[in-house]
Amino acid sequence: MHPVRNKQLRELEQTLYVEIPLTRAMGVTVAHFDATGLTLSAPLEPNINHKSTAFGGSLATLATLAGWGLLQLVLRERPPVTVVIQESSVQYLRPVAEDLRASCALPRAEALEKFLRLLARKGMARIELEVLIPAGGETAVKFRGLFVAFEKHRHPFTPPV
Amino acid sequence: MHPVRNKQLRELEQTLYVEIPLTRAMGVTVAHFDATGLTLSAPLEPNINHKSTAFGGSLATLATLAGWGLLQLVLRERPPVTVVIQESSVQYLRPVAEDLRASCALPRAEALEKFLRLLARKGMARIELEVLIPAGGETAVKFRGLFVAFEKHRHPFTPPV
Repeated sequence: MHPVRNKQLRELEQTLYVEIPLTRAMGVTVAHFDATGLTLSAPLEPNINHKSTAFGGSLATLATLAGWGLLQLVLRERPPVTVVIQESSVQYLRPVAEDLRASCALPRAEALEKFLRLLARKGMARIELEVLIPAGGETAVKFRGLFVAFEKHRHPFTPPV
Repeated sequence: MHPVRNKQLRELEQTLYVEIPLTRAMGVTVAHFDATGLTLSAPLEPNINHKSTAFGGSLATLATLAGWGLLQLVLRERPPVTVVIQESSVQYLRPVAEDLRASCALPRAEALEKFLRLLARKGMARIELEVLIPAGGETAVKFRGLFVAFEKHRHPFTPPV
């Protein structure tokens, strides 16, 4: 995989704004990508709840987008692929009273290789991703998502997710 | 529990708009409440994704709000209570290519009574709620959420969720 350039992070941001308009209302930005994974951020204010901390729906949504965005970057040199979420679980461990940062870890090499191999062979593959959101230096939200990627030209139908 | 009047549904809607501003961007409305539960709705357009169906983040968020809203109505005659989400899981079974409707079922009588009894005794109690979102007449999204309610005057601290 070639290094991801800053230009590609801005392109991912534009893709989010155009294809998922709720990301604009949330103020989502693509903050950082390196060998450890992808981090998205969003200001607290448009994502606030009745307790003046981050709304659970916004936290789950930002985590979902971090997983989806990571796969967009991982798969950017492949034939056109659509990525959708199939299952997710979220643990809300502590309130987030600061701007939101969701970091999706790059999966371990073996899991990633297996996913890419299946995708090339079958035109469709699943992968589980973990996303963490910190607050005050500790983990505030743990998200686990099962994502499905499928090659558009080999699976033109609407997938079940 | 006294019947919920239409005025109280409009008050819940206003509470959502004021306290969780993302609900305005999503176009959330309080659609219906009766003995089976609470239904929230939202138009597809502001909640669309890259496949022109409902964005997973919006679906999970609307389901979370349906659970939270149901507890606001159930607890409206009690001492002031704060409700937060502690855990959730979502299964995305099929795409939603229509306006979103999330229905949170009223829990079974025994579960609800136990929850209310614990809340009265300890000032804090947990309850699990299920929310379904249909599409084309079938279940498209299954959401399960564990919510915590605590009485504000007995638990003035910030809870762990």
